[in-house]
Amino acid sequence: MGGRYFEDWHVGEKMETRSTTLTEDEIVAFAREYDPQPFHLDRAAAEASPFKALVASGWQTAAVTMRLIVESGIFGESGGIGLGVDELRWLKPVYPGDALHVVSEVANKRANPEKRSGICHFKLATINQNGETVMSHTAIVLVPKRPEVRA
Amino acid sequence: MGGRYFEDWHVGEKMETRSTTLTEDEIVAFAREYDPQPFHLDRAAAEASPFKALVASGWQTAAVTMRLIVESGIFGESGGIGLGVDELRWLKPVYPGDALHVVSEVANKRANPEKRSGICHFKLATINQNGETVMSHTAIVLVPKRPEVRA
Repeated sequence: MGGRYFEDWHVGEKMETRSTTLTEDEIVAFAREYDPQPFHLDRAAAEASPFKALVASGWQTAAVTMRLIVESGIFGESGGIGLGVDELRWLKPVYPGDALHVVSEVANKRANPEKRSGICHFKLATINQNGETVMSHTAIVLVPKRPEVRA
Repeated sequence: MGGRYFEDWHVGEKMETRSTTLTEDEIVAFAREYDPQPFHLDRAAAEASPFKALVASGWQTAAVTMRLIVESGIFGESGGIGLGVDELRWLKPVYPGDALHVVSEVANKRANPEKRSGICHFKLATINQNGETVMSHTAIVLVPKRPEVRA
């Protein structure tokens, strides 16, 4: 799919990304750099934690969600600029080997006549191989309007 | 600071982390893996983008914020389990070399008499070397209660 502009998005429209897998090595590497808590770093320590197993940092789940969205090409060459996130919830643990994909829905959109971009709210669900939503959030994104063609 | 339990947190209490710097290499490495948009990947492409310069992925700013919080040791050995995030806002771009630190405030806390943990809401501000808040959010965290000592 090519890049889409603000005008191309319709409220209620749904999109689905491919799926991707997080390995144990990737989970531990992310945790070492960004979230060095025992249940993300080390299998034995994780077994003694409330999770009872090694789990991915929720921020890595969020980052992988972003990658899937960007890779789907929906924002095109100009990119989508994230303004913020509402109601992010980590609903289920993500374990090594889990295959995640993302389903997004346009919740609403707001144009600004004076600007060359508008704001779209996307509701996103990050879903594992069992069909369970592991993370949900609403992304608030600045989306460029279609460039004007001058005569 | 040692680890703190649910009972140790007081509404209105503020904490501040050390500061850390994101290099251009770290910004590009994160973007390659998690947010491959032109304004995070390549200096020339970024100069042609609305940012006019290479900027960090907002998800990397969030991940660095997490690292600063974890490294401050406030959650202790048992860790803090993130349930979700409300009202995350990326307010200013983060450029290579920016030094970020985090100020957190306990916004509210809620015990559950039947459980060995409670829920704390922390308001967090991620602040650059100019005193500008680059990101703000409210973290919803499951915090263990102090272990019971059995006679």
